[in-house]
Amino acid sequence: MPLMKSWVASANSADTPFPLNNLPYGVFSTPDTDPRCGVAIGEMILDCQAAEEIGLINLTNDPLFDVPFWNDLMEQGPAVWAALRDRLTALLAAGSPHQSMVEPLLIPIAEAEMHLPMVVPEYTDFYAGRHHATNVGTMFRGAENALPPNWLHMPIGYNGRASSVVVSGTDIRRPWGQLKSPDHDLPAFLPCRRFDIELEMGAIVGTPSDGPITVQEADDNIFGFVLLNDWSARDIQAWEYQPLGPFQAKATATSISPWIVTKAALEPFRTDTPPREFELLDHLKDVGPMLFDIDLTVTLAPAGKPASTITRTNYREMYYSAAQQLAHHTTSGCPMNAGDLLGSGTISGPEKSERGSLLELSWGGKEPFTLETGEQRSFVEDGDTLTLTGAALGDGYKIGFGNCTGTLLPALKDPYER
Amino acid sequence: MPLMKSWVASANSADTPFPLNNLPYGVFSTPDTDPRCGVAIGEMILDCQAAEEIGLINLTNDPLFDVPFWNDLMEQGPAVWAALRDRLTALLAAGSPHQSMVEPLLIPIAEAEMHLPMVVPEYTDFYAGRHHATNVGTMFRGAENALPPNWLHMPIGYNGRASSVVVSGTDIRRPWGQLKSPDHDLPAFLPCRRFDIELEMGAIVGTPSDGPITVQEADDNIFGFVLLNDWSARDIQAWEYQPLGPFQAKATATSISPWIVTKAALEPFRTDTPPREFELLDHLKDVGPMLFDIDLTVTLAPAGKPASTITRTNYREMYYSAAQQLAHHTTSGCPMNAGDLLGSGTISGPEKSERGSLLELSWGGKEPFTLETGEQRSFVEDGDTLTLTGAALGDGYKIGFGNCTGTLLPALKDPYER
Repeated sequence: MPLMKSWVASANSADTPFPLNNLPYGVFSTPDTDPRCGVAIGEMILDCQAAEEIGLINLTNDPLFDVPFWNDLMEQGPAVWAALRDRLTALLAAGSPHQSMVEPLLIPIAEAEMHLPMVVPEYTDFYAGRHHATNVGTMFRGAENALPPNWLHMPIGYNGRASSVVVSGTDIRRPWGQLKSPDHDLPAFLPCRRFDIELEMGAIVGTPSDGPITVQEADDNIFGFVLLNDWSARDIQAWEYQPLGPFQAKATATSISPWIVTKAALEPFRTDTPPREFELLDHLKDVGPMLFDIDLTVTLAPAGKPASTITRTNYREMYYSAAQQLAHHTTSGCPMNAGDLLGSGTISGPEKSERGSLLELSWGGKEPFTLETGEQRSFVEDGDTLTLTGAALGDGYKIGFGNCTGTLLPALKDPYER
Repeated sequence: MPLMKSWVASANSADTPFPLNNLPYGVFSTPDTDPRCGVAIGEMILDCQAAEEIGLINLTNDPLFDVPFWNDLMEQGPAVWAALRDRLTALLAAGSPHQSMVEPLLIPIAEAEMHLPMVVPEYTDFYAGRHHATNVGTMFRGAENALPPNWLHMPIGYNGRASSVVVSGTDIRRPWGQLKSPDHDLPAFLPCRRFDIELEMGAIVGTPSDGPITVQEADDNIFGFVLLNDWSARDIQAWEYQPLGPFQAKATATSISPWIVTKAALEPFRTDTPPREFELLDHLKDVGPMLFDIDLTVTLAPAGKPASTITRTNYREMYYSAAQQLAHHTTSGCPMNAGDLLGSGTISGPEKSERGSLLELSWGGKEPFTLETGEQRSFVEDGDTLTLTGAALGDGYKIGFGNCTGTLLPALKDPYER
């Protein structure tokens, strides 16, 4: 599929992340408006609430866009998702008869503040990248025990903390936590010393479910994707995570990119999961290409300095698709809701330059890496800005995600001071 | 404090779980009304929505009871919690001048259907009972490694799945899951064979927080308590839980009792945590008696047969208080919201008859126990009804919780059949 032409001139560049082929959904505000739903087109945002109010969007009996989140649309299911995409395409396509009515409803992205695009009822984080799991397992348990015995049979995941999900651009405060260094007998309560990122994709559940669903049903139920940075306090994690998993190490913040790229926009970029070492059980078997070919990059900019690219990888490196993760998530009967967020797990490629966390890039801090500024890093330092970017590359266009960025602020001197 | 007298006759019995001293909060419906907030008094429920509508309750500018959940009250904070309790006491006390206006607003509990008393934004489950952790650790890792190294230094917890929290009386469907028995090389997808309960108390966060809070602040922020049964699929758990903790094993259902017993009603029953083997770090130190003396019982009734008591224990057996759990939960900066539910962890006493799970009672299935009907049990069988009860025993009165009950339905033959 080639670039689809829009009457919004900035949407017709091969470099824009938001051509007419994309139409990602976000929530924005301006000095003149409270947060509201919008769709990105080139360098502009179409105000969906205003478009609905004047009847340009009229899909359902009750309004969809009188609320500042996309969950209401998600709950409508795939037929309404498709109808909205068709309508937005008709409104914004080159030659649209609606141009004169739509034009006043466009706001420059540069003038908008972005908010979380949806209410996140619950957040689940997986561990479904084989290179990452092998790297981390090798560091912690040795190469021979790198992958846990269950890893090749199911997408391992744990429940994260939805209240800590924030939109790109939110500053992150270095947390305090209980740590125990190997050379001390007792733990201490200190600021985290090994603060890290995890490069992930977040899949967003659209259609709710209330019992086990198949991999195909899971794929059907997924609404879209965001970039996701699962900030991780490695030293807190090391002390707390046995036997019940990560808890406070992952509860400071998880940043997501502000635009939900719909599954519809990513259809041309479907790709298969890698070959299977063990045949998966029937309820988890691949039933089609359910990964997506999305180039991913992480940059690190020390305070006041230029950014260095520290990782380049691709979402197709995952061992399990989001559809397989969601299907596994429901096996026990677990109810899923519109807006539920599933982190893919850290996405690392096979090469050192393709690793999705500083833990892997610096091999647990033993091999600090060098930025283009000449500085070295093992973990994130105060003032560092970490930025995830992602794009699926089409024929003369790209489907971009918008940045997922955050700056690490120093720990509070006394976390209990008011 | 003695029994406080009410003009509602059934509230003045030494046996009622709901004397005037209690005033627990629930959400009920009748054939004539949609779900709405109510307070239990003896054998009756006072309809709080109706009381507010006619001006008998008038605490805030905006109505508190135009919604079928208690979260709005929780968000108002302790001063409004106290004002509501004072007002309800004034309305229902013997000699109240309001009796004639309140009387028409009473509905028999026997005619009401109960619903979840609050929206549960997120659910966290702890592992903070020493006897339970020692029992389970001994079974899985041997007596010498029973307690993980971090256990005596922090309340170990993990994020559960809020969407699976159900109100007492909801039937529970035996889940399917991925299992691997020790005598097989590969896992299989089968109905759970080792389905279990966990006897817990649930603490409910009232006041939201957005950063680390002290143990005293945490105690202040807790709104009340429920009984909680954290249904657990032990065979699913055994295969999935390393390295990131329980996931699908705990996602079928968690049942809670329908009435929130407020912290205010439990004040006379405060008790200290047990002696500390290691001094806790300052941010987790006890700052007063923050456990509660609450007798707890579990009964098991096979289908169509009488119930046998299988456990008697007490909430004071916990090593960590709910306040310490909540304080630990916020160390990383994790935001907490009104209605967040914190499971205490399984409450087992030191004796065999005081164990809070079938896993412990049957020692992993190796020592089946005998019910009063003569039947044996290692884990929950299809048709079994499990019931948790709890009460704090005062001077001539008790503060009861109402039952937390659920019946196990057989697994579906094909979980994917529609």
